[in-house]
Amino acid sequence: MILVNGQAADHLDVRDRGLAYGDGVFRTLRTADGQPLWWRDHYAKLAADCAALALDVPDAAVLLAEVCRVAEAGEGVVKLIVTRGTGARGYMPPRGRPVTRIVLSAPLPAHARAEAQEAIAARWCSLRLGRQPRLAGVKHLNRLENVLARAEWDDPAIFEGILCDDEGLLVGGVTSNLFWVSEGVLFTPDVSQCGVAGVARTRLLRAAGRRGIPARIDRFLPAAILAADEVMICNSVLGVRRVARLDDTSWAPAGWTDILNIALYEDLVD
Amino acid sequence: MILVNGQAADHLDVRDRGLAYGDGVFRTLRTADGQPLWWRDHYAKLAADCAALALDVPDAAVLLAEVCRVAEAGEGVVKLIVTRGTGARGYMPPRGRPVTRIVLSAPLPAHARAEAQEAIAARWCSLRLGRQPRLAGVKHLNRLENVLARAEWDDPAIFEGILCDDEGLLVGGVTSNLFWVSEGVLFTPDVSQCGVAGVARTRLLRAAGRRGIPARIDRFLPAAILAADEVMICNSVLGVRRVARLDDTSWAPAGWTDILNIALYEDLVD
Repeated sequence: MILVNGQAADHLDVRDRGLAYGDGVFRTLRTADGQPLWWRDHYAKLAADCAALALDVPDAAVLLAEVCRVAEAGEGVVKLIVTRGTGARGYMPPRGRPVTRIVLSAPLPAHARAEAQEAIAARWCSLRLGRQPRLAGVKHLNRLENVLARAEWDDPAIFEGILCDDEGLLVGGVTSNLFWVSEGVLFTPDVSQCGVAGVARTRLLRAAGRRGIPARIDRFLPAAILAADEVMICNSVLGVRRVARLDDTSWAPAGWTDILNIALYEDLVD
Repeated sequence: MILVNGQAADHLDVRDRGLAYGDGVFRTLRTADGQPLWWRDHYAKLAADCAALALDVPDAAVLLAEVCRVAEAGEGVVKLIVTRGTGARGYMPPRGRPVTRIVLSAPLPAHARAEAQEAIAARWCSLRLGRQPRLAGVKHLNRLENVLARAEWDDPAIFEGILCDDEGLLVGGVTSNLFWVSEGVLFTPDVSQCGVAGVARTRLLRAAGRRGIPARIDRFLPAAILAADEVMICNSVLGVRRVARLDDTSWAPAGWTDILNIALYEDLVD
């Protein structure tokens, strides 16, 4: 089911700035029994991303009601899109026009179900992410780099591609954030230059703090993960997944993925 | 008037990848008496941009017929959008699905009419463009940098913003390519790292070659234009316009804009 500005619809005005310029943001979240998981975190991130683009964030109660209205029975996924709406021709953001909100549901993908394998295989992407601090961290609609990176492979055994920036420093996965543990310390790349600061990443860092696991966010060379005890990816649909293999490098389980995945979901704020 | 895949419509499937990821390209071209100007160059650029994203380019005759069908009486502007169409959820580009083509017309903007002032005022933008050689030069739908840059001013006396990349080197205008002449040589910034290689830019460089005007494409510091004899911007809607003022720097006319604007339109290929 799809709602466009609260109305059941599957079409959008072709003059919407979301299409013209990718002038908007989105969220992908998991639902269970008609309710979103981690809603407070998702709404906080949506509000922060809207603020980064000077977009009005839709009202939380309105959005939550729409998410619940479209959510699949049982487990599912909902995607929320907020765009700057329709406007006059040209890049100048119009003032005082309502944003467009789109809420659409989909079944939970097979790889996110409980019976899916706990570990995944990944590859290095050859595309290097450009650095743009004004947009870094934001889950905006300008995602051509992700499309080009994902087009680099079609082997279904490879679940994720790992990306570096144009200086060769680690950023994250095409659809996920990247974490690793070395000698009891949790590491994840800085995303202030490129990449997305996902909700699962925020929650995982918070959970690590609550559990007393030291965490370090910094700029790292690829060698940092090759020497790790355990490597993981996370996003809001998957939770935490262990990376068992990255091209020619393999890691045996070291137990961190289970600990962190449980910690990710136990957050008591929601 | 708007055509979506050849049918009169003003709506698009919300699952279109043009909205989801900005997964597509566009062209803005000028029309006169129901015909596009510079059609061969625009179609060649569209085909090159589609190739850069591994998109199927729509048939030239089909597109041309659609452009003529929507074009305003007298003078006008037509925007063409080609997206990767609708597809399964996820960044992976689907195979064998048809692209979406959107053709929409608008009246010629006042600033592009014959009676508009020949010179414009510009400002420096504070936003620095990120460098991404895989997308540089392509007029794709990921245009948030342009939106953020255009949002930096609302003084209607300022027509254009001039952008540098994250190394402080010149790229071009928010909506135009940048040229200048110093001691009889025509200069324009390299756009292999960021920016758009517009059709007017290509035509201007070709025209300079035909007229025996030496041209140099390279990476330049902002100081290069401050010392120029004449500074210009160009795009397919405006042609060539002289930059009379850029923040605190002013230039008196040196005659090059007229020469180059005539040369831009005299191209005999079309």
